[in-house]
Amino acid sequence: MSNVRILGIDPGLRLTGFGVIEKVGEKITYISSGTIKTASGKKNKVEGEDDREELPARLKIILDGLFEVIDTYQPNQVAIEKVFVNINPQSTLLLGQARGAAISAAVIRNLSVAEYTALQVKQAVVGNGHAQKEQVQEMVKRLLNLPATPKPDSADALACAICHAHGGQGLGKLATAGYRVRGGRLV
Amino acid sequence: MSNVRILGIDPGLRLTGFGVIEKVGEKITYISSGTIKTASGKKNKVEGEDDREELPARLKIILDGLFEVIDTYQPNQVAIEKVFVNINPQSTLLLGQARGAAISAAVIRNLSVAEYTALQVKQAVVGNGHAQKEQVQEMVKRLLNLPATPKPDSADALACAICHAHGGQGLGKLATAGYRVRGGRLV
Repeated sequence: MSNVRILGIDPGLRLTGFGVIEKVGEKITYISSGTIKTASGKKNKVEGEDDREELPARLKIILDGLFEVIDTYQPNQVAIEKVFVNINPQSTLLLGQARGAAISAAVIRNLSVAEYTALQVKQAVVGNGHAQKEQVQEMVKRLLNLPATPKPDSADALACAICHAHGGQGLGKLATAGYRVRGGRLV
Repeated sequence: MSNVRILGIDPGLRLTGFGVIEKVGEKITYISSGTIKTASGKKNKVEGEDDREELPARLKIILDGLFEVIDTYQPNQVAIEKVFVNINPQSTLLLGQARGAAISAAVIRNLSVAEYTALQVKQAVVGNGHAQKEQVQEMVKRLLNLPATPKPDSADALACAICHAHGGQGLGKLATAGYRVRGGRLV
């Protein structure tokens, strides 16, 4: 029976969520999850010209955090959320750089990286590509038998890993694993 | 006399230019330059949805290329061009990811990273923030006593390193190094 450990990543410059699950056959198990925080604590800081020194330091925090996760939980594969293009081009650029660092951590450890859009992830986990954040959190909790609802960033990372575990194919695969889904809910 | 080796980087997803210079006192010397190519050779490929496997592989090429440059030429500091925000948000995102990988390579090797806008770099090297590409190439050639004109991506990377060598302060510092400049030209 195939045994795969998947690291899901929800990249962001301030918060990068991660979630590790294990897939044995069609069954998935929760291993770990959390958030890498790079925020400086300064509120409402304008991003752009002023943070010349800050961006490289933040990317280093993301890299070191993910290296630690990879070295601790030894995933075989990485699934990362494709970030949306923001209305603010400067934010898009910053997010792109955070995502570039996250992918860098994975490829430096020679892990294959699969990319999924938020729509694919939500479709796979909730059965509805336009599901709300709360629905994703709730489904992740149920699919992984978690004792509590994971925080949004961890939940998104775990959802991305779950999406990858099921080949990004949506809930068809989940059904074969003994789950029944109707209208985006487990029944 | 202070002796600093600076790696300049002009990041891009298809082409990443690099240039290494050495600064001894106020004098700068050319060490090496070149281009890291990640282009697959497929012409006019639409970027976005189709290159799911390709982006991580490309970032790996940028990382491996820069690690090789860093390990070979042992720079003490890195100067990287701040990329402009493209009209096409998808291009901005891709460029951001390439830049994130380039900064990742530097911070993983524990190098400090300074960032300069294209305007600052041109101002420092040509004396005109809106200088043409050819003027940058020509000035880089003259400032570093190169036997031939460097290619655009290498020239931009070398220009970024030169800008950093002079503290990003423009041509004021160059003048003290024995150069005279008028209207963006050495005289």
